[in-house]
Amino acid sequence: MLPSYVEDAWWIPEEPVRTTEVLDAVTGEPVATVSTDGIDLGRAVAHARAVGQKSLGELTIHERALKLKQLALHLQEHKKELYDLSFRTGSTQRDHYIDIDGGIGTLFTFSSKGRRELPNAQTIVDGNIEPLSADGSFLGEHIYTRLPGVAVQINAFNFPVWGMLEKFAPSFIAGVPSIVKPATPTGYVTEACVRLMVDSGILPPGSIQLISGSARDLLDHLDYRDHVAFTGSAGTARTLREHTGVLENGVRFTAETDSLNAAILAPDAGPGTPEFDAYITSVVLEITAKAGQKCTAVRRVIVPQEHLEAVVGALAERVGQGACLGDPREKSTTVGALASAEQLGEVAGAVERLIAAGGAVRVGGPEGQRPATGSFYPVTVLSFEDPRTPEVHSVEAFGPVTSVIGYGTIEEAIELAALGSGSLVATVCTHDPGTAAAFASGIGAHHGRVLFLDRDDAKTSTGHGSPMPHLVHGGPGRAGGGEELGGVRAVKHYMQRTAIQGSPDLLTGITGIWHQGATARIATRATVDSGETEHPFRKSLETLRIGDQFRSDLRTVSLQDITDFAQETGDTFYAHTDEEAATANPFFPRRVAHGYLLVSWAAGLFVDPAPGPVLANYGLENLRFITPVTYDDAIRVTLTAKQITPRVTDDYGEVRWDAVLHNQDDELVAQYDVLTLVAKTWPLPAAESD
Amino acid sequence: MLPSYVEDAWWIPEEPVRTTEVLDAVTGEPVATVSTDGIDLGRAVAHARAVGQKSLGELTIHERALKLKQLALHLQEHKKELYDLSFRTGSTQRDHYIDIDGGIGTLFTFSSKGRRELPNAQTIVDGNIEPLSADGSFLGEHIYTRLPGVAVQINAFNFPVWGMLEKFAPSFIAGVPSIVKPATPTGYVTEACVRLMVDSGILPPGSIQLISGSARDLLDHLDYRDHVAFTGSAGTARTLREHTGVLENGVRFTAETDSLNAAILAPDAGPGTPEFDAYITSVVLEITAKAGQKCTAVRRVIVPQEHLEAVVGALAERVGQGACLGDPREKSTTVGALASAEQLGEVAGAVERLIAAGGAVRVGGPEGQRPATGSFYPVTVLSFEDPRTPEVHSVEAFGPVTSVIGYGTIEEAIELAALGSGSLVATVCTHDPGTAAAFASGIGAHHGRVLFLDRDDAKTSTGHGSPMPHLVHGGPGRAGGGEELGGVRAVKHYMQRTAIQGSPDLLTGITGIWHQGATARIATRATVDSGETEHPFRKSLETLRIGDQFRSDLRTVSLQDITDFAQETGDTFYAHTDEEAATANPFFPRRVAHGYLLVSWAAGLFVDPAPGPVLANYGLENLRFITPVTYDDAIRVTLTAKQITPRVTDDYGEVRWDAVLHNQDDELVAQYDVLTLVAKTWPLPAAESD
Repeated sequence: MLPSYVEDAWWIPEEPVRTTEVLDAVTGEPVATVSTDGIDLGRAVAHARAVGQKSLGELTIHERALKLKQLALHLQEHKKELYDLSFRTGSTQRDHYIDIDGGIGTLFTFSSKGRRELPNAQTIVDGNIEPLSADGSFLGEHIYTRLPGVAVQINAFNFPVWGMLEKFAPSFIAGVPSIVKPATPTGYVTEACVRLMVDSGILPPGSIQLISGSARDLLDHLDYRDHVAFTGSAGTARTLREHTGVLENGVRFTAETDSLNAAILAPDAGPGTPEFDAYITSVVLEITAKAGQKCTAVRRVIVPQEHLEAVVGALAERVGQGACLGDPREKSTTVGALASAEQLGEVAGAVERLIAAGGAVRVGGPEGQRPATGSFYPVTVLSFEDPRTPEVHSVEAFGPVTSVIGYGTIEEAIELAALGSGSLVATVCTHDPGTAAAFASGIGAHHGRVLFLDRDDAKTSTGHGSPMPHLVHGGPGRAGGGEELGGVRAVKHYMQRTAIQGSPDLLTGITGIWHQGATARIATRATVDSGETEHPFRKSLETLRIGDQFRSDLRTVSLQDITDFAQETGDTFYAHTDEEAATANPFFPRRVAHGYLLVSWAAGLFVDPAPGPVLANYGLENLRFITPVTYDDAIRVTLTAKQITPRVTDDYGEVRWDAVLHNQDDELVAQYDVLTLVAKTWPLPAAESD
Repeated sequence: MLPSYVEDAWWIPEEPVRTTEVLDAVTGEPVATVSTDGIDLGRAVAHARAVGQKSLGELTIHERALKLKQLALHLQEHKKELYDLSFRTGSTQRDHYIDIDGGIGTLFTFSSKGRRELPNAQTIVDGNIEPLSADGSFLGEHIYTRLPGVAVQINAFNFPVWGMLEKFAPSFIAGVPSIVKPATPTGYVTEACVRLMVDSGILPPGSIQLISGSARDLLDHLDYRDHVAFTGSAGTARTLREHTGVLENGVRFTAETDSLNAAILAPDAGPGTPEFDAYITSVVLEITAKAGQKCTAVRRVIVPQEHLEAVVGALAERVGQGACLGDPREKSTTVGALASAEQLGEVAGAVERLIAAGGAVRVGGPEGQRPATGSFYPVTVLSFEDPRTPEVHSVEAFGPVTSVIGYGTIEEAIELAALGSGSLVATVCTHDPGTAAAFASGIGAHHGRVLFLDRDDAKTSTGHGSPMPHLVHGGPGRAGGGEELGGVRAVKHYMQRTAIQGSPDLLTGITGIWHQGATARIATRATVDSGETEHPFRKSLETLRIGDQFRSDLRTVSLQDITDFAQETGDTFYAHTDEEAATANPFFPRRVAHGYLLVSWAAGLFVDPAPGPVLANYGLENLRFITPVTYDDAIRVTLTAKQITPRVTDDYGEVRWDAVLHNQDDELVAQYDVLTLVAKTWPLPAAESD
């Protein structure tokens, strides 16, 4: 009896009535019995909302992200156990790399992106500040805060590990506890993975729960605070969408469902080109990996009509050479079994429908060779005379099966691709940038992802069928209309975007980021020299606070300064050196100081030179020059600690400074952010400063 | 008979059977008859998909945005006509400013933001480039392309002009044609506005259609290519969500529905504080403007229990002084009529339910004074002893009605706010940043917008009830779960985000933005001097192309250079001046060159100094210093035209240059984008260069 994990404890039904036997996909032997009879999912939801929200809320985004790395390292150590179990689902070792290593890799990527691209805070600021009053006293901006509920993650049978982790990673970083509901046929692999995760001791209480078996009344307990991410059939997605929770109570629902993904061979990529070979390799890989049980597999091979037979021939040759069906534990096996006898029946039925619709069997098919026992289906290529045969674009044979159709013009290829009514991914094989652009604008809005394959990326491509954690995964229409992954975009799926409006002081308090116009603690050269205030550069992260500000004195720019700077840097652009030409320029009054002179001088004006906690200036952002500075003008700089991001794993952190330059008439000359690394304590611990 | 506008022509039913009479809200006189009997909405959808998509597709984002400005100017000229008509809906002149001027202002804002914040192209790039292979030959990124269908915009009766324009503006910029369906009671104002828009001749064919009356079978014709944005009741939203188009066919559906918005008086904002006065002013404004018929109106006044009577007293006093119900055309009138007799019945019924649930009438109510004829309801304030009375948090009296409840602790106030089960907006009135932060994290995820009101922004605040085009409008749960506005965010609601993967050359071709690693047309100092190639700075936008590149020679940095730069700029930071301290720094080998020295020298290395089409360097972005440069190192710069954005209304445009610095060992020293203004032709037309 496969256990569930609820309320931070393993649970099995006491007297199960409704049970499901899960069988080995290869041998047909029983693997596990599954039942959720008697489980209290209302309590599970309440536990997530109370305990999970609390424990995750005690961590910052970076702390959560770091835990994902620890978790990935832990799973990495134990992945052999998951491999061993996964063979029973019909998967080959190559398939394990996609599911298990792919899942672990997703944790690593999210851990890294979470720490590099998100603040070390609870709240994420989105976009720019919008000044809503002329005097700067009323501002607007947007923040993301985590959903106050639970993330329910319902996964498909084909990726018991990756399917869970690609949803869990972003929700965990967002700070939203998960309830994981794997598909029953391969849920025992998910259970083993969750067990490893729980046993690692890395996860805070309530942050993960597992339902091994039917989800029963789970949706009845959810409302607008909660999120359901579903991967599976369009039929089940429809049923979930019809639930009162979604229709009326505002449950946030996303789906990733069926998809008849296309691989399009462009007119320039005919036989004899490197693109043609790359195309054939890619299609064969996509119909054999995971025995074709990938929602991203290539179901429609769309090729120039004149190359259709060449494509079919090349596919037949490659499948004949390379596709070896059999026990996935055997090294020689390249195509494993389908996940269950039920799936085998589904695939066989779908192929029959495609044949009845006019599909000619060119490789494999119902009569193709396959092992006598186990859920195996031959690698199958069908071709169709009528490329608009509706079944080609609507019947998903979820196995090693694909349909080849021909097109005339690029416009027709675009139309055929769109007949899929929305897909997860398409490949366009072309070496011509213009053709790539035409396809991108023609099929982009029908797809969640489009891979452009050519000779330059054929070797390094991550593949048509592989959703990358960096890029969005999902698609419109038939593909479910959802969006997952996409780096930190996915974290925001588990958060609410809220516009906030208020005064600079209040928005500073809310976001932890200093806003222009908010209260500042001012130091000047005079107050620093007199010892009245400390220069912000003398403060480590222990004492530095946002709003710590240094205001410089004015420094006058002479014509000689400009001329000297031009000579020394070599930047003799006419605006700095040619009075007549500079005056004729629509933006300048006469010769002006270089922008680079201004920012260099600004550094000279704000810097506190002696060794101290400010370790380095590693960059600069959003620099804009507003009012030109000509000779005899003067500039001053105001530098304010704007955002402080201590690193979880280092002795220092990032400090972003707001820098504003004014001239002698208090006109705005330039503004930008200065990015520095600042020590947490000063001096640095000895080991680090060596 | 009120006409519809379909297939670029005005249409009225020939033999209408099902008709609705629309009456003047004040006098009860008939204003218009409405019917869509016999309208062919399938053809309207097909027209939008064919003609509208084509005509909008011929314009760039900036060109569309500029048309919105022209449209706004046209409506501005004719707004008096709309005022005159709007009085008949019961609105006062103050209400017209919200609806009509607010709508026109939204067009101006979107026009400006579209041109400032989006590219002058058809496609929008989202986020950063993701390197997916170690050698840079395979990259990933995201693009937005417009939806290939129609934007159906179903609006509520309370804002016949703003409601249409706030949805129309972003879909128009995205390039998606609109079908506008106003609410019948005030649709005659929308019709007048659409007539002005059509008569202006500014809109391309098929870009707008209007359904005056029932939308009938419209949804039957939609699928995943299309978008429905609905504002109205939760009941209607549910009905739409249950339609097969949404459930099965992937219609993109967003809703903005009921909302029981809260205004929370924080503990620090009691009587006698400037916040208390601002709070009372804001609440009174929100319950009287548009006679309380705003989805953003304050329905729940949540105040410290000990100040409840003071708040009720202050509200009663202010309503008594200022709320004058009557003919909206009268100058003395401050509160107009409800939009219809039906609405009057709805509001009266809702107040009865609130009273039955325990509400005490403190101001107005069923017995309150009001004009004898017309759809008027008295300004009404109820108070409740039990702040958790369910009706307070679920019954929306869509008129000049609000409920006052008391709380103990801030935690309790947060809980009470959340009992609204998701709202469009809340006001939190506090002058304490810590209190603001506690409320932001406590109620943020339950709200689409939170306004923080205090003494600093009371005068300049745009108000609790005013959705700003810059900020998102919408909210989770009861508020419908949708999101509108939010500046360019709203444009993207009408586009599909798609991940694209490929080689640098193909992604350059697709996005029109040069990618590192893509083909470049290289110029060097030697080839420029010999006349073999032209320096990119000598090219106007007529001839400059992305990929035009200048590669400099190496220039060696001496210790003297560093020392001189430190002296001249005043930037004597120890890393540049103190060998021992620099060497002790964890990031530097010994004394290093200033980052500002490197970018200044880089400019000297890449610049072509003579007067020419490059007019100014107006900024710099995303500068990162990677490998430090110490004395005796040398640097070289590679500058490549990355993105070219001609301005629609000027003689120049923005050119973004990719700048990369390497050292003598080809290690990456720094990278950044240089932002310049470049003339469309050179020399500039005479008038402009004066």
